Parts: sequence; C-alpha cells; structure tokens
Amino acid sequence: MLGDTLENVRKTVPLVHNITNYVTVNDVANVLLAAGGSPIMSDEPEDVEDITTICGGLNINIGTLNKQTIEGMFRAGRKAAELGHTILLDPVGAGASSLRTNTAVKLMDEIKFTVIRGNISEIKTLALGSGTTKGVDADVADAVTDETLDSAVKFVKDFAKKADAVVAITGAIDLVSDGDKCYVIRNGRPEMGRITGTGCQLSALTTAFVVANPDNKLEAAAAAVCTMGLAGEIGWSRMQDGDGNSTYRNRIIDAIFNMDAETLNKGAKYEIR
Amino acid sequence: MLGDTLENVRKTVPLVHNITNYVTVNDVANVLLAAGGSPIMSDEPEDVEDITTICGGLNINIGTLNKQTIEGMFRAGRKAAELGHTILLDPVGAGASSLRTNTAVKLMDEIKFTVIRGNISEIKTLALGSGTTKGVDADVADAVTDETLDSAVKFVKDFAKKADAVVAITGAIDLVSDGDKCYVIRNGRPEMGRITGTGCQLSALTTAFVVANPDNKLEAAAAAVCTMGLAGEIGWSRMQDGDGNSTYRNRIIDAIFNMDAETLNKGAKYEIR
Amino acid sequence: MLGDTLENVRKTVPLVHNITNYVTVNDVANVLLAAGGSPIMSDEPEDVEDITTICGGLNINIGTLNKQTIEGMFRAGRKAAELGHTILLDPVGAGASSLRTNTAVKLMDEIKFTVIRGNISEIKTLALGSGTTKGVDADVADAVTDETLDSAVKFVKDFAKKADAVVAITGAIDLVSDGDKCYVIRNGRPEMGRITGTGCQLSALTTAFVVANPDNKLEAAAAAVCTMGLAGEIGWSRMQDGDGNSTYRNRIIDAIFNMDAETLNKGAKYEIR
Repeated sequence: MLGDTLENVRKTVPLVHNITNYVTVNDVANVLLAAGGSPIMSDEPEDVEDITTICGGLNINIGTLNKQTIEGMFRAGRKAAELGHTILLDPVGAGASSLRTNTAVKLMDEIKFTVIRGNISEIKTLALGSGTTKGVDADVADAVTDETLDSAVKFVKDFAKKADAVVAITGAIDLVSDGDKCYVIRNGRPEMGRITGTGCQLSALTTAFVVANPDNKLEAAAAAVCTMGLAGEIGWSRMQDGDGNSTYRNRIIDAIFNMDAETLNKGAKYEIR
Repeated sequence: MLGDTLENVRKTVPLVHNITNYVTVNDVANVLLAAGGSPIMSDEPEDVEDITTICGGLNINIGTLNKQTIEGMFRAGRKAAELGHTILLDPVGAGASSLRTNTAVKLMDEIKFTVIRGNISEIKTLALGSGTTKGVDADVADAVTDETLDSAVKFVKDFAKKADAVVAITGAIDLVSDGDKCYVIRNGRPEMGRITGTGCQLSALTTAFVVANPDNKLEAAAAAVCTMGLAGEIGWSRMQDGDGNSTYRNRIIDAIFNMDAETLNKGAKYEIR
Repeated sequence: MLGDTLENVRKTVPLVHNITNYVTVNDVANVLLAAGGSPIMSDEPEDVEDITTICGGLNINIGTLNKQTIEGMFRAGRKAAELGHTILLDPVGAGASSLRTNTAVKLMDEIKFTVIRGNISEIKTLALGSGTTKGVDADVADAVTDETLDSAVKFVKDFAKKADAVVAITGAIDLVSDGDKCYVIRNGRPEMGRITGTGCQLSALTTAFVVANPDNKLEAAAAAVCTMGLAGEIGWSRMQDGDGNSTYRNRIIDAIFNMDAETLNKGAKYEIR
C-alpha cells in the first residue's frame, strides 16, 4: 500500500541534497521536513561532492540555473551516481530556453537518473533532445486529459523504458511509470497552479520517498505524487473566507506534516495501467 | 476605472520575467500568481535573452545584485527593449552603495525603462546620477508628506518627463506620474513596512499591470499601487489576536488573490494632480 | 533583566547586514523586522563593504556558501571589524564538508567575531580546527543533555575564552557563554526542528540584540536565545487542529513581533552557571 512508503520516510528520515532554484527553496526545505525527511542545500561545485556523499538522495532542479550551479549539478550528479544514490531531475523550463534544454539533455546523457519529474512539455523536450532517449515518439498532446490519456500513457512508458528511470509527468492527471506499469493519478486541485513551487516541492518529496523505499521505487514515486495532490485537497478544504494562494501554500505543507498512512491510503485516487 | 486594469491582468495572464533579489523572490512569484499573472525567474546571462523573449514584461530589481546577475540585467534589458516589452526598474538600495548606484544609473542610461519604482531616496539618487535625467531638481524632502507634497509632485513629474517613463515613488503617500499627470495615492498601512518585500512585490505587480494594459500605462501603474495598498488594508483587517508580520504577509497576498475590480474601484484612494 | 535588551532593539532599530543562505533568507529578514530591527542583504564582494559600513552589525551564515559569497564574507568581515561593528558567525554545516569547515575556520582566524552561534557539532568542529582556538578540549558529547551538561558548560566556556567571543550552542538545552559566565537556557520546543531556518533566524536576531546592547553582549545574546525559544512555545500554543510546520513558522515570527519585555522576562527559563 502507498501508505507504507510514507511511513518509511518518517521512520528513516532520508537526507536529501537539493540543488534547486532560489524561488521555492524554502518551501522545498519545509516540505521535506513536513514529510519526515531532512534537507540540505548546496550548489557550489567545490562543496557538492562532500555534501551529496553524506545524503541518501540528490534532487536536481534547474529552475534558476547558472554556470556555477550547472557545474555543481554535474559534479554532484556524478558523485551521487558513483555512490548509487537516488537521483532525481526536475527539468524546469526545458524547452523555454536553449540553456535549459541543453543542460537538461546533457544531464540526462551523463548521469543515470533514478527519477525524472516534470510537466508534459518539459518531458517531451527531454524525449526529443536526449541521445539516451532518442527514438521515443513524443508526438503527444501538450496536456494529459481523458481524451489524450492513451497516447500519454504510451509515451511515458516508452520514455521511462528508454531512460531506464521512473518518470513522473504531472498536470491535471499525473502519470508515473517505470516503463512497465503506469500509475494514472487524479489527486490534486487546479488552484495548486496558483502557488509557486508545488512542482519543485513534489520533486523533493519524490526524492525522499524513493530514498526511503529503495526496493519499491515506482510505488514510492506514485505515493509522493498522491501525497502532494491529496495535501492540495486537504489544504483546500481548510481554506476560509478571504484566504488566498499564500495561505493555501501553508495549508498544503501543513497537510503533509499531518499526513499519515491511513489518510494517504484512503485518499489516493489512482489506477494502474 | 482602475478595476478594468486588474481585470485585464486576470484575462491576459501576463508572463513576467523577474531578475530579482533572493530575499523576497518567493513572495514576488506568489503575488504575480495572486493577481492573475505568471512569473518566470532567470538571471544567468546565457539564459535571460531566451526567457525574456517569451515574456511580456521584465522586472529588474537590484536588491541582491552580483556581477553575474548585473550582466544578466543588461542582456535581458536590451533584448526586452528591442522587442518592445514593458520593462520596470526597481533600484533597491541605490544611494546605499556605489555598486548599486552605478548599476542603477547605468541601467537607466542604456535601457529605456517603461516604469521606474522606488522610494523617494532611491529615485532621488537616480535623478541626480543619471545622464538621461540630469537637470532634474532633486532637492526635495526625504519623505512624501502633506507638507512636502507639492514639491514632491513637481519632482516626480520632472523626473518622469526626463526619463520618458512612468515613475512611481512609494511611501506613506504614493506618487505615480508619467510627467504630465500625477496620481497621489493614500492606500496602505504603516505596518506594511514591518514585512520584507512589499516594495519588491509591488514592482512585479506593476510590471504585470502595465503589460496587460499597454495603452493605459499610467493608470495601470497607479492601479497596481492602489491594489497593493488596498490589499495591505484588507489584510490588516483580517488580523487576529496574536498575529504578526509573518501572517500579515500571507494575508496581503491573499487579499490580492481575492481582489476584484469592484473592490479596487471602491477602495482606491487617490486624487490626480 | 533580559526584557530591557529587547526594548533596546525596538528603540534603536539596529540595521543588520546579512550574508546568509538563500534557503531561509526571507524568514531571516522577517524575523529581524518582527523584533524591531532592520535587515539588509548583500553578498557581492564589490558591494559588501559599502553596505556593511552603514549597518551596525554583520551576520555571516555559511549555509549556501559559494566562491563569490565567501569572498564577500571576508571583505565584509574585515570592514566590519575595522569599524568595530558587531559580527556574528553561524558556521552552518561546518564538519559536513571540507569547504564549510575550512571557510569557517579561516573566517575565525582572520576576523574577530563578537558572537559565534551553532549547534554542538558545528562548534566542536570550530574548536578543533581553528588556530585561534586550538587547545580547547572538544571531547564532549554530541548533544547537550542533563547528563552531559557539566562537560558542555566547561567546553563552551573554554571555547568562548579562547575565541574571545560570546558563544551560543543551541539545541534541546541552549548554552550562551562569554568565557566567564554561562547561561543554560531551557526555552523552545522540539517541533522547531521541523521548520527550516530557526537557527538562521536566531543568528540574525542575536546580531540585532547585541548591536542594540553594546555594553551587555552576553545578556543580549542570551535574551535573543530566550526570545526565539519562547516564541517557539507561544507559537506552538496558538496551533490549531490541522496546522503543521508551515503555519508554525508563521506563528513563531508572529510571536516575536508581539513579544514585549514583560512576556520575555516572565517566560525566559534559564540559570547562570
């Protein structure tokens, strides 16, 4: 059950090294603490190898990349790979600029990621651009809906297989696949898009879940996605008259702080394809 | 009416590129989302041109400038100017250090800004220092009060005319001028000064408003200033016993999330000189 | 009484220059404003000397150090020392990476700090590594508990004497010493560890308190530690069903905003050894 994977996070307190953007980094740290993990941030190339060595997982998010931090991503990624750590890529803005696309593709080519998480457009950019994933048919729609679901499921499975990674495409409907199975998840609320950083938070959360569940990576990643979406639902249910996106941000993290296995098991809405 | 300019933000979802300080960047992103806009952050020189190209406006805030991001500001600014985008300068700390003063002045000299927003002391520094605005009499008091209002209105008009921009000077009384007319705005609460970043948030908000109202820049900027001040009033009215500046921060952004044209039209307190 | 030191912060509004990590920087700014101080952030080497000159204190936190900001720390530190300003070191992660350890030790060797604040493991790393503190017996336990209290008090006194600084070791029990006396403080709540940045906030707060109480540094630092812990207690007492660490973060800063001398005097739990 998904709830067990959450309990494993709380029991093992996975230490996650984050090289992430400065926009949402505080929420990323607090969401890891809310789930029962522990965050460390470090992006200086001379610092990242030592830091990643003492962690269980590495979360690379290119949201505000610069030349220094890109070098940090590669050095941390290589070290973490060498140590067999969980490594997640969140290719924020891949497709929106050459630097982002090229960095994400080069990271994919040089580092073996455990998980890749992004929206459909970012993941399509990776599928088209990366040598390691060339050959994946990325001719799918730009939103995962009931109408486009079949082709999107096929796409995420193909991409996961080629990349030899768990791939999570998040949006109105979330897809999480290891190439073989695909979780189709319908938790969450559209208002989550009115808060900055729910995607960044989910990437950090997913890293922690996978670190804590090394033998069950697909289910762990799916559980992280359900946890985030369910927290969005619970947080919304606690909104009062006059509350807006800033309070909603707090309530979502609060809901993760209070999430337990039973709540997650009951509230997770998914099917496996 | 000012309310229409807010509705245009909600209808057109302006994408705003922010090169801003890492202190208040999260609130900047959330306030843009609250108003109905969409934020992107990027400060790496190699990334900013691509990113600003896909946006409608550029918000340059020098609050935690460094040599890399300064280069990013110039490259983004030139590109945005070339594309005819809305460009705003928030000269945080101009006057407090040589680097800040020189950077702000040089930005003014090289890039045609649509809007400049700062406190009276920052704007005076620009007026004294910039080749493009030399000749403006900056011999005004360091606070805009009823006593100093006449000379401050004259100053902001002169500066706006010289700079060929909309200029917003914010403080206890806010002034927004295009060189011809000047909005004198009396929204807001003194307690807003006990929160970090209300100025940075206002700069981002103003950028979004102007992007969404290209034929009505002065009114759009004034509407953004009224929206922020009114949100400060509404947010304060929702404070409960024991609440302080951290909760107040959330309530202000929440109030912007819930602001509608009617509330803004009713609550805006201004005269035009 | 400790409460007087808080009142001095509110009366004198100390301006604190922070070179701090981008994870918790927003909370650091808001906590300084909550206490009655005023924050400025600047880490660019070419900017820091001007900025620190106009401030009363400098708070150096190495939480997300990089080569540029390290240079900024040294330049700001030297300038602040030259001007006789209060300077605080928060050696985040010293012991966790060579770069962090070496940077903290080198800062200690080159700059005369007024206050050093960290957890027991960070402070032990400094005691072992720094030329200026060599000879301090750092063979104490890794947590300050009732069982290890005697040796920990001896250690912090020895280290403070060698470093000629006020040293604050924070954890379940907090110790603040100038080498002669040692405050043993029992405010706070374990749940504060589930929020990112309470340590960083405390370092900024301590800087402000010491700036505002130049003739009473030890008591000022102890008062800052009590204020933070007591705010953690008050904040927790205001938590409602469903609230979690994100709301708790707000409530702690809110409690500092509302703290007065009487509340602090009544709520501070300490003995002097």
